[in-house]
Amino acid sequence: MNYNIIAFSGSLRKESYTTKLVKAFQQFAPQQMTVNYVEIGHLPFINQDLEANLPAAVLDLHETIAKADGVIFATPEYNRSYSPVLKNAIDWGSRPEGENKWKRKPVAIVGCTPYNLGAFGAQNHLRQSMMYLDMVPLQQPEFYLGKAAEKFDAAGKLTDETSIKKIIELWEAFAPLIAMHAEKK
Amino acid sequence: MNYNIIAFSGSLRKESYTTKLVKAFQQFAPQQMTVNYVEIGHLPFINQDLEANLPAAVLDLHETIAKADGVIFATPEYNRSYSPVLKNAIDWGSRPEGENKWKRKPVAIVGCTPYNLGAFGAQNHLRQSMMYLDMVPLQQPEFYLGKAAEKFDAAGKLTDETSIKKIIELWEAFAPLIAMHAEKK
Amino acid sequence: MNYNIIAFSGSLRKESYTTKLVKAFQQFAPQQMTVNYVEIGHLPFINQDLEANLPAAVLDLHETIAKADGVIFATPEYNRSYSPVLKNAIDWGSRPEGENKWKRKPVAIVGCTPYNLGAFGAQNHLRQSMMYLDMVPLQQPEFYLGKAAEKFDAAGKLTDETSIKKIIELWEAFAPLIAMHAEKK
Amino acid sequence: MNYNIIAFSGSLRKESYTTKLVKAFQQFAPQQMTVNYVEIGHLPFINQDLEANLPAAVLDLHETIAKADGVIFATPEYNRSYSPVLKNAIDWGSRPEGENKWKRKPVAIVGCTPYNLGAFGAQNHLRQSMMYLDMVPLQQPEFYLGKAAEKFDAAGKLTDETSIKKIIELWEAFAPLIAMHAEKK
Repeated sequence: MNYNIIAFSGSLRKESYTTKLVKAFQQFAPQQMTVNYVEIGHLPFINQDLEANLPAAVLDLHETIAKADGVIFATPEYNRSYSPVLKNAIDWGSRPEGENKWKRKPVAIVGCTPYNLGAFGAQNHLRQSMMYLDMVPLQQPEFYLGKAAEKFDAAGKLTDETSIKKIIELWEAFAPLIAMHAEKK
Repeated sequence: MNYNIIAFSGSLRKESYTTKLVKAFQQFAPQQMTVNYVEIGHLPFINQDLEANLPAAVLDLHETIAKADGVIFATPEYNRSYSPVLKNAIDWGSRPEGENKWKRKPVAIVGCTPYNLGAFGAQNHLRQSMMYLDMVPLQQPEFYLGKAAEKFDAAGKLTDETSIKKIIELWEAFAPLIAMHAEKK
Repeated sequence: MNYNIIAFSGSLRKESYTTKLVKAFQQFAPQQMTVNYVEIGHLPFINQDLEANLPAAVLDLHETIAKADGVIFATPEYNRSYSPVLKNAIDWGSRPEGENKWKRKPVAIVGCTPYNLGAFGAQNHLRQSMMYLDMVPLQQPEFYLGKAAEKFDAAGKLTDETSIKKIIELWEAFAPLIAMHAEKK
Repeated sequence: MNYNIIAFSGSLRKESYTTKLVKAFQQFAPQQMTVNYVEIGHLPFINQDLEANLPAAVLDLHETIAKADGVIFATPEYNRSYSPVLKNAIDWGSRPEGENKWKRKPVAIVGCTPYNLGAFGAQNHLRQSMMYLDMVPLQQPEFYLGKAAEKFDAAGKLTDETSIKKIIELWEAFAPLIAMHAEKK
């Protein structure tokens, strides 16, 4: 069986380390896990006045989420919390009321910062939203990539051996969680 | 002396209760406190690639914050956290690196929800960002307006006596905090 | 099949509403779920110097947790966070290093306060620990019992119909989570 | 003028790095700041049934807090949150209802862990309680001491130059906050 994993980056910067981290999760995914990167920068700010007539970009997002067997949220840390563009996509995925497309999807939250903390603050805020959305969180291993600038090469590839090992370990825990929940559908 | 307070609503909905709450804080402000409502829906999503050449809307925001003696953030709660549009304005107010315009500004965080909890989850996430931005938070009284639909009249005015009393109490604690920090400048 | 659920109250007060709430979860448990209340007030404060020679009370706790198919943490809210006595039991259940007895146990977190918020702040702090302990959290429904004094009768029985309905709904989501994880063992 | 700062360690372990960190804050305090270390391991677990007749240890704690011009909480991280013994002292300092001795005291929260994160999770939970207690938090600089084992010598002295520099920087921000609030009394 093959599983469809959708992955989001919370950074819009072209050379974003967070987006490069998503690519690394793609590169080191187990064979049966296909990781599809989802763009979110074109979504409008969430606004309930738009809900009567959902924008096409939101309808596409809903469809993309509905088809997924698992989700990866990669977040930078802005002012000790997550980035607005990422939460905006998360919020649209649950609107209007009663249309929570994230429900019971297995989810891994990972983070990336130029400094030491690896987006701990950002990740834990996202976990509070995952609770409300009734997603199935990967609890362990946690994943904090600090000092990002030292860990990718000029071409944007993750070269830090410890970080690669942690990505593989995360997949070893996340893949069975995805498989278990896909079976139950 | 007169003080310039800037106030932000985290909801873009035209009939937003959160925005109406901002108006109520305006209405019940002490005489020496002028509350200016700041629009934020037109800001682009934060993106470090835009920092080399800051958009005019961001430069305006920087100027607006720089002139303020105090700040009110009114947030709805989306998926047990704050709204993306509000955090986006907060993040722009601190970018690029080294341009944190919020530093040492007194800040009150208030929230509003259709249900019971009054945006507790949203508010506490914002407080973590306020820490990083080195703002001076009003700690008490906290302000949670639940069951919003019952508390405003058809014209959008806050009519609930208990809530009005709480707004006045908040000002009684916030005004001296603002005055004290303004003097030190 | 019968399942063994262990339940903890974060309050030591004899007439504690939090403890009464545990009893209500006991009373309204589905037939195949046996809820055993676990005392924790006699545990010493966690102290790594005691780990070389674990106190008998801690060994008992370890055994109790090891046998459980699911866990309920009922917490009061002290200063917007959980109670020390509850976290102390949680911490002992994971010590010494490598002896995390909570791992992969399904867990429901519920709260109870005299005021409106129903221990939201306390519960979300506990959820962060549940993540680290790799427990399987019940995400929805959340459970916040506010205005506790109005909801129990003189004998300590939960009489509020809405709250009883919410307990039953929580069990309807929690019981299958427990059963699913018990099968995998 | 001389200021009386009280400092708490969240670890009871004899060779605790957290307690050693408190000593380092003592050692590098500015001349006008006297740091008094307060023992808390002998306090009973908080229990409202004890409030009618407060234990002597609690009365002592109340008196100690009442006399302080500022507070330092040094916390380890247990399961991504603070230690029970520290929160227990904090809770007793605010009980019974109406007896919040922490009110308007300037407070610095610092943390120490064997790993990278430096107790970020623990510290942010404590900040939520500081809000409720209406304390005046030092917002910046934050203080996270990771990899603690490498940073102290055999005698328990902090020898890491970077960490010492950060302690001095913290005092440079904290001392004026203490002085400013002491004057207003």
